[in-house]
Amino acid sequence: MGKKVAGNLLIIGGAEDKKGDCAILKRFVELSGGKAGKLVIMTTATKEPEAVGKEYLQIFGRLGGGQIEILDLPSRMEAKGEKAVNIISEATGIFFTGGDQLRITSILGGTPVNEALARAYKNGVVIAGTSAGASAMSDTMIVEGDSDSAPRKNSLRMAPGLGLLEETVIDQHFAQRGRLGRLLAAVAHNPYVLGIGIDEDTAVVVGADARLDVIGSRTVTIVDGKEATYTNVSELEPDQNLALHGVRLHVIPAGYGFNLRNRQPLI
Amino acid sequence: MGKKVAGNLLIIGGAEDKKGDCAILKRFVELSGGKAGKLVIMTTATKEPEAVGKEYLQIFGRLGGGQIEILDLPSRMEAKGEKAVNIISEATGIFFTGGDQLRITSILGGTPVNEALARAYKNGVVIAGTSAGASAMSDTMIVEGDSDSAPRKNSLRMAPGLGLLEETVIDQHFAQRGRLGRLLAAVAHNPYVLGIGIDEDTAVVVGADARLDVIGSRTVTIVDGKEATYTNVSELEPDQNLALHGVRLHVIPAGYGFNLRNRQPLI
Repeated sequence: MGKKVAGNLLIIGGAEDKKGDCAILKRFVELSGGKAGKLVIMTTATKEPEAVGKEYLQIFGRLGGGQIEILDLPSRMEAKGEKAVNIISEATGIFFTGGDQLRITSILGGTPVNEALARAYKNGVVIAGTSAGASAMSDTMIVEGDSDSAPRKNSLRMAPGLGLLEETVIDQHFAQRGRLGRLLAAVAHNPYVLGIGIDEDTAVVVGADARLDVIGSRTVTIVDGKEATYTNVSELEPDQNLALHGVRLHVIPAGYGFNLRNRQPLI
Repeated sequence: MGKKVAGNLLIIGGAEDKKGDCAILKRFVELSGGKAGKLVIMTTATKEPEAVGKEYLQIFGRLGGGQIEILDLPSRMEAKGEKAVNIISEATGIFFTGGDQLRITSILGGTPVNEALARAYKNGVVIAGTSAGASAMSDTMIVEGDSDSAPRKNSLRMAPGLGLLEETVIDQHFAQRGRLGRLLAAVAHNPYVLGIGIDEDTAVVVGADARLDVIGSRTVTIVDGKEATYTNVSELEPDQNLALHGVRLHVIPAGYGFNLRNRQPLI
């Protein structure tokens, strides 16, 4: 796992507190250097970039952020611009809002901004994302799949993500939308990847040592299929149900961690 | 596991097909002896015993059931009556409708009808239950608990069930209502019990050999906490979140089975 992990990731399961003590968003501001930091809000995922961008701008300001900028890249043309690349290159913290993860990857994928992001991450810059912004972090991301439903192959669509957190599939709004089924289906496709289901108002902080720490008000569910003894995923007809035997599952609340390298929970 | 298992159980996750080929309800009629069978519909769980009872009466008739009777025991007084005991004693198949599982146990628990049920089961009579009727089957049953939520101790209420399927906790409407969290919380309390989460229009048939077979249109999720390495459940404050490490999870669709004795899935 994760020799590529160099910077810090803050991956949020959506619906993070924006009115109370804002523990998760505050952590982003702190990790990014606080008053000395240069925060960039990436609104590519959302179709309401102005409203969403402004809301985070105000919150990060209130939480003690230094220089804060909204970078709206609504199309691939903008994601090629030198100005955008410079903004990313100077950032100490980059925040992806929610929306549609496919907008993030289809607009940024393979562009100079994407390269700048990867460089920034390697240099230790904090990259955060909530909801769609969380899904986009993994190598392969879940694009679409039924919530509150039995695990099926058919209802699941996946696509290449930003690849910041290797060997994982991330899902968000996890318990609140009943997404165990789709995460299990994703893991069944290739148990090499670790499934990470993040609840609302909950986040994982991943450091350079491949250690994952949970913060926020709910839990993170980790699905490890490495020791799975059987799955029928390769033989399934459309609309047939998944069989998957022997998955290892961990429930991790705030204050606990997980070692992504050896896949062991930390107490 | 289960030296007490003698008869057949048919445990249904609720919302079983009542209009199409009725695969699950048909199985009940067949297991109970078809035309030669004496079916009893137990409506204790529901507050609309007449409507619910009549619906099943018609369906079981249409599916080839022989003698079919509705046994409505709305209070403990009725559950002491000799007539009710005789009806149970002559049945070849007994079906518990949905409603509130606490009505089943609080009305029947410790009564002559409950004893007659246990005797019937030991003699090989088929006992079926859907939704609340499914929950009531286990030793300890889930009475109440948040759906679509993170695993917490506080939101979960359990009570003694009918005890027909030992060493288990059964949950129903499982994927459709996002009930992983509450099943994990139940298992964390005592990993000796096996968590069985049954989807809607899905059922398990448990035979005298402690073999569980899945039928119906979705899946059964089995949560085995025996090898769990850690939980904080005994130290939790109200409203704190559960930690639970190293649970084994199996997804079992129709056509597959599970050995309850050694807790291994069957292919």
